[in-house]
Amino acid sequence: MLSTIISIGDELLIGQTLNSNASWMAQELNKIGVNVVEMLTVADEKVKIIDVLDRAKKKSDLILITGGLGPTKDDLTKQSLCDYFGAKLILNETILNDVKNLFQKRGLPLTELNRGQAMVPDKCTPIRNYLGTAPGLWFEKEVKIAENSSPQMKSSFPTANCLLIISLPGVPFEMKAMISDFVIPEIKRKFKLPVIIHKNILTAGIGESFLADKIKDWENNLPQYIKLAYLPSLGIVKLRMTTCGEDEKKLHAEINSQVEQLKTIIPEYIFGYDDDTIVNAIGKLLKEKNATVATAESCTGGFLAHLITSIAGSSDYFKGSIISYSNDIKKEVLEVKKETLEKFGVVSEETCKEMLQGVLKIMKSDYAISITGIIGPTGGTEETPVGTVWVGVGTQSGFITKKFQFPFTRLQNIEVTAVNALNLLRKFLLRKII
Amino acid sequence: MLSTIISIGDELLIGQTLNSNASWMAQELNKIGVNVVEMLTVADEKVKIIDVLDRAKKKSDLILITGGLGPTKDDLTKQSLCDYFGAKLILNETILNDVKNLFQKRGLPLTELNRGQAMVPDKCTPIRNYLGTAPGLWFEKEVKIAENSSPQMKSSFPTANCLLIISLPGVPFEMKAMISDFVIPEIKRKFKLPVIIHKNILTAGIGESFLADKIKDWENNLPQYIKLAYLPSLGIVKLRMTTCGEDEKKLHAEINSQVEQLKTIIPEYIFGYDDDTIVNAIGKLLKEKNATVATAESCTGGFLAHLITSIAGSSDYFKGSIISYSNDIKKEVLEVKKETLEKFGVVSEETCKEMLQGVLKIMKSDYAISITGIIGPTGGTEETPVGTVWVGVGTQSGFITKKFQFPFTRLQNIEVTAVNALNLLRKFLLRKII
Repeated sequence: MLSTIISIGDELLIGQTLNSNASWMAQELNKIGVNVVEMLTVADEKVKIIDVLDRAKKKSDLILITGGLGPTKDDLTKQSLCDYFGAKLILNETILNDVKNLFQKRGLPLTELNRGQAMVPDKCTPIRNYLGTAPGLWFEKEVKIAENSSPQMKSSFPTANCLLIISLPGVPFEMKAMISDFVIPEIKRKFKLPVIIHKNILTAGIGESFLADKIKDWENNLPQYIKLAYLPSLGIVKLRMTTCGEDEKKLHAEINSQVEQLKTIIPEYIFGYDDDTIVNAIGKLLKEKNATVATAESCTGGFLAHLITSIAGSSDYFKGSIISYSNDIKKEVLEVKKETLEKFGVVSEETCKEMLQGVLKIMKSDYAISITGIIGPTGGTEETPVGTVWVGVGTQSGFITKKFQFPFTRLQNIEVTAVNALNLLRKFLLRKII
Repeated sequence: MLSTIISIGDELLIGQTLNSNASWMAQELNKIGVNVVEMLTVADEKVKIIDVLDRAKKKSDLILITGGLGPTKDDLTKQSLCDYFGAKLILNETILNDVKNLFQKRGLPLTELNRGQAMVPDKCTPIRNYLGTAPGLWFEKEVKIAENSSPQMKSSFPTANCLLIISLPGVPFEMKAMISDFVIPEIKRKFKLPVIIHKNILTAGIGESFLADKIKDWENNLPQYIKLAYLPSLGIVKLRMTTCGEDEKKLHAEINSQVEQLKTIIPEYIFGYDDDTIVNAIGKLLKEKNATVATAESCTGGFLAHLITSIAGSSDYFKGSIISYSNDIKKEVLEVKKETLEKFGVVSEETCKEMLQGVLKIMKSDYAISITGIIGPTGGTEETPVGTVWVGVGTQSGFITKKFQFPFTRLQNIEVTAVNALNLLRKFLLRKII
């Protein structure tokens, strides 16, 4: 099944809004075996909308449109689709009820403009929107064959080829809920799509090329029908295995067996799978141990604490942090010795260690992380260049430290430091008991 | 001048990479008066690249292409452009030197694959790339008239209409440097474009509709040729004034005079202009006063400290932070009284005030910010629902507190709280002397 994604909106064309909707939709379509052949962004003008629909129709079986469904007169998608399909707007009672309920919940009166949202083209099935006023529109048009569909793809339709045009609001959380809760399940139900299985293996603490080298034998022995992609981000490399076929059970079994083999090769680098994150992984480990953690941050300036507390429920295991940005605070609050700072410097293993001991004492946490470094863009010396960071992880009875040298911009250095610090804690948690 | 932006790459179509290049280019083009009429994303296949070029040619005077210029055989843009223009690849000595220098600097040997990067189509002018191996390609083709160019736009070309096709690498920092340093200046030099002036007025502490109400007389009296846009984000509303014409000096004077009028209407809400940020605005104020600040954060979990320290040079005025996520830390470190927590609750003006006093004492900073709240998604009560936040700002000798009620998701509530806390400090700094 081939798909075109059409994004409608002037805010996209002037670069004011990043088109994250199109990327997200492409990801979701890929997961169920729909290939996106083109993405188009156009202004909210009837002639332009119809022009891109004409183009998309020739290239795809499924056209997904977002944007231009608002209640104001500059939103023209619904009217354009009416013209395109020769449809007229009729009041839909279910949608009107949804809109009424939404306004009631917000304690606002229903305006005539918003009442208009319940007018839907008579040739489509409306898709209910529980988070906003604009319903989605599901059109199934004429039996057709996409010009560049493969014969195999063509035979994937149950009875005959049909063109599916789905129009959704541009508000990301409304669009996402409608895609996940209705569009994807409905497409899967109606069309016989190939089974596509993705499995993500998440690694930290090793760069892409070193990882590739470590797993090259395993990678070379992967069966032809399993594709492997390396997806690196700051401090993390995601390995994505993808396979496609008919027998879902068999494909799952094969993928799982490959993952089991991989686990024996790089056990220390894998921190999770699929939607896991490194902060979640640490939260899980701490909860299992019924233990707490605290942080002492210098150059990361609170970003590590922010990452930890971005997770709902982190108050179960996170006690707090001392952000000792100035050296006075390192001395007076964290009790780093004046002589240590003078003899070894602020960015040193010794300072990092005393920060760790200080925060453990103050926060009375089971575990702690300490960070001191030069994050840039200036402030480096010959001995301690920009990007030098010391990270400490430990308990009252034992700790480890590690020195890093990062080559990125200020904000990237902050992020990669925090991710590596979390990974160091993860490794420490897996080896030690309080 | 009308433009189409073409993005080439499978990683975009599968949603793995967000197309931030297209948004950025659209912004840059807009600034010099070039309108983007369409954005297209296609796979790196010759037939598809030529197909979108054909489409773009009918709709625009300027076609900007990114991606597909890598050295490997799956990068087909250069070959496609050769076919399109009937050109052949020839070795360019200048580019070869650039590539050689780049490899020398990195201490790597020049491979045959990378030597191939110096082969450029004979019908284009190569654009030098100082940050990578792929040169840009500047084609000027046949005199033509874009189908939907306005007569006014058509007359903006110096001698005759021409089609400009510019192909650039997809690596963001390489593309950006080439656009800023060469493409934009060269377009401005070659073509007589209308003068476009944007002025952004940045406000905080007031919602979009309240702001619109406050400035409605001013807005209604704006001359026809000045357009106003409201661009809201979390805690901030940007007002963008845009005007277009011939006489740059006069347009600047008119915009500035309107800004002066606006400043008298909403002086307390404006924190900056154009590329200013609220953290930068506070940094400037603190530096002027030669004063320091510290923070005590509960529900924001370090995000406020992170925002402040995201600015290089913030160590001049930021001393540090106590992240008191657990109530023990509020009591033991910040010295919030047990009775205060019991009588008024953790999320209360009294707790917020004692946190402020505690952090001022510990950090010995001139100013401080304290935050306590329920950020969600759970943990609310009838009296103190999710989204309730108390912010305190002050010195040893005086302080203010403010209660907020935010309706967003966890991460959005954290962000909007931090922005509002910074804005409260800004207002406090403007009214008080240490």
